[in-house]
Amino acid sequence: MADKVAVIGAGSWGTALASVLAGNGQDVRLWTRREDHAEEINHYHTNHNYLPGFQISEAVQAFTDLGSCTRDADYILLVVPAKAVRDMMKELRPFMSEETVLIHASKGIEPGTSKRISEVIEEEQADAAAGSIVVLSGPSHAEEVCAEQPTTVTVSSNDTLAAEKVQGLFMNHYFRVYTNRDIIGVEIGGALKNIIALGIGMTDGLGFGDNAKAAFMTRGLAEISRLGVTLGASPLTFNGLSGLGDLIVTCFSRHSRNRRAGEKIGNGAPLNDVLEEMGMVVEGVRTTKAVYELAKVQSVEMPITEALYEVLFEEVKPEEAVRQLMARERKHEEENMSLLLDPDFQEKWNASRNNPGTDRQ
Amino acid sequence: MADKVAVIGAGSWGTALASVLAGNGQDVRLWTRREDHAEEINHYHTNHNYLPGFQISEAVQAFTDLGSCTRDADYILLVVPAKAVRDMMKELRPFMSEETVLIHASKGIEPGTSKRISEVIEEEQADAAAGSIVVLSGPSHAEEVCAEQPTTVTVSSNDTLAAEKVQGLFMNHYFRVYTNRDIIGVEIGGALKNIIALGIGMTDGLGFGDNAKAAFMTRGLAEISRLGVTLGASPLTFNGLSGLGDLIVTCFSRHSRNRRAGEKIGNGAPLNDVLEEMGMVVEGVRTTKAVYELAKVQSVEMPITEALYEVLFEEVKPEEAVRQLMARERKHEEENMSLLLDPDFQEKWNASRNNPGTDRQ
Repeated sequence: MADKVAVIGAGSWGTALASVLAGNGQDVRLWTRREDHAEEINHYHTNHNYLPGFQISEAVQAFTDLGSCTRDADYILLVVPAKAVRDMMKELRPFMSEETVLIHASKGIEPGTSKRISEVIEEEQADAAAGSIVVLSGPSHAEEVCAEQPTTVTVSSNDTLAAEKVQGLFMNHYFRVYTNRDIIGVEIGGALKNIIALGIGMTDGLGFGDNAKAAFMTRGLAEISRLGVTLGASPLTFNGLSGLGDLIVTCFSRHSRNRRAGEKIGNGAPLNDVLEEMGMVVEGVRTTKAVYELAKVQSVEMPITEALYEVLFEEVKPEEAVRQLMARERKHEEENMSLLLDPDFQEKWNASRNNPGTDRQ
Repeated sequence: MADKVAVIGAGSWGTALASVLAGNGQDVRLWTRREDHAEEINHYHTNHNYLPGFQISEAVQAFTDLGSCTRDADYILLVVPAKAVRDMMKELRPFMSEETVLIHASKGIEPGTSKRISEVIEEEQADAAAGSIVVLSGPSHAEEVCAEQPTTVTVSSNDTLAAEKVQGLFMNHYFRVYTNRDIIGVEIGGALKNIIALGIGMTDGLGFGDNAKAAFMTRGLAEISRLGVTLGASPLTFNGLSGLGDLIVTCFSRHSRNRRAGEKIGNGAPLNDVLEEMGMVVEGVRTTKAVYELAKVQSVEMPITEALYEVLFEEVKPEEAVRQLMARERKHEEENMSLLLDPDFQEKWNASRNNPGTDRQ
């Protein structure tokens, strides 16, 4: 018996995930707001704006009406930009039931509130009939998934059974799914790597080499872990697919929007020009602002995020931000792994042994 | 007062480190076995075989006589392939004293014995007058160091004072040095990343994408950490510059010999042809063999290393090895971070708090 899945959002990642599910024999409906977009998908089985050159499974049916798209759905898979999640949830509310598992694959932090996506979803579910929430994350460029290149992802939920059901839904010979119980760590890793990817692009724009990039990524992951642990994540999650894995793929891939945006900014282009020119969401720009604010509230030191914030929003020149970063680092007795030396770590580590925040298949 | 440093080995890394030291005003002598090589360095200030296109500081003097090279040296910096360390130490023994700090920057494991470089050095120092041993490691392509691109490295020693002296010797505006007390972790990370780099090259040769590479690197680092912890390293070291940082730079750089060798092997070229064609040491090939044997003795599961061993030495086809790896992984409930869930971890972690295996500046 095929499961019924409503995929909300027909960007590159939503469309790629819909194709995986259709290939696995699930009954897949894909929602997009635009009539012409739905028509393109239904008649030509392409999505040329988001996945140029790829043919989408003919089994994927597109809808513009949310009610028709979600009718009798066992799963709703939300793949919209972080800033759109709350409004989308309000629209979806009439169509959800206690049996509907809500999966999200949005990597970001809500602007303004600096909340994780599953927190936003929970808030919007509060007074409605609502099932479990599962997050899907990991090193996974949509284009490679459409080409059936080997790909691994993590699904995480407070409801282990729901996570395992979602694992079964997606798993096939090229798309491997691990479960992980640390939803905070999985969401933070997936969102914050976009900040580091922007920065890596910027070092490219400035003409730096691989030695500098490797140091930047190493210290970047330490900074992400530091905030994550403060927010209640297991430090182990950041070494897994949704942390290190996603950081690597995003920083080095030809496909990364965040990296390309950073490169243009490093070359001296103003932020607004870059965003306009790219014509797609650059999640890392919004995430930098949200995390900058979150780090201030939580009193977590995040020098790379701060430096990027200053370049993006305070007209500091990229060269100057990097110079400051190097000078600042030079003063510190800072350790890459200081989070693990935190007095709270042992307690958290003990908790994580009983409820391991690690990728399980 | 300039320090006197004898650099033993005029390959690309030895020459690059000699240039850093000369630029810092140290008195640098560089040893090479070949007369014509020494002449090229002394008369033309180039090293066209190993660093084509770069001009070496005129302050670097080359020698072929070990006695002249090491006379009154405060530091001996050994930069020879792992398999040559023991014989080189035997040759150096007459010229060492208790005051000479021995620094090594060789990334590898001794073939046959599967020992770390500092273990080999210690054994050869056993009945001689000998000073402290310091290892220098981290994400550092020689070409970028010669171009004065920002670079960070780690120095590690059981003798903290010696490590700090070496830090002072190298530190400048583009070459940043952190100290770290976990010499086992620093040496294991630096040696074993070459195995993963070979594998990444092989996935390139097989036409795999970035999603697969990110997963491979993530699981590869977990495998390295697992062996390292078994050998007494702190798990934290593998998240630092000499672990994750060096893995990143080696796997993604245009300059990596190991990666290029892996790519040719992935394309179907026989190992001997590849080694002959490259005409340089491919440390990862020897390291794979040494670590394969070490993992067997230590009963540590290292599926990626095993798969590469089979391709390199047992005529298993790369496609077949990858297929086996995927199938094997599929069976396991294996966790990326299982080492951290090891019952011994807490004890080790406690020990590492008192003697932190983390990068300090």
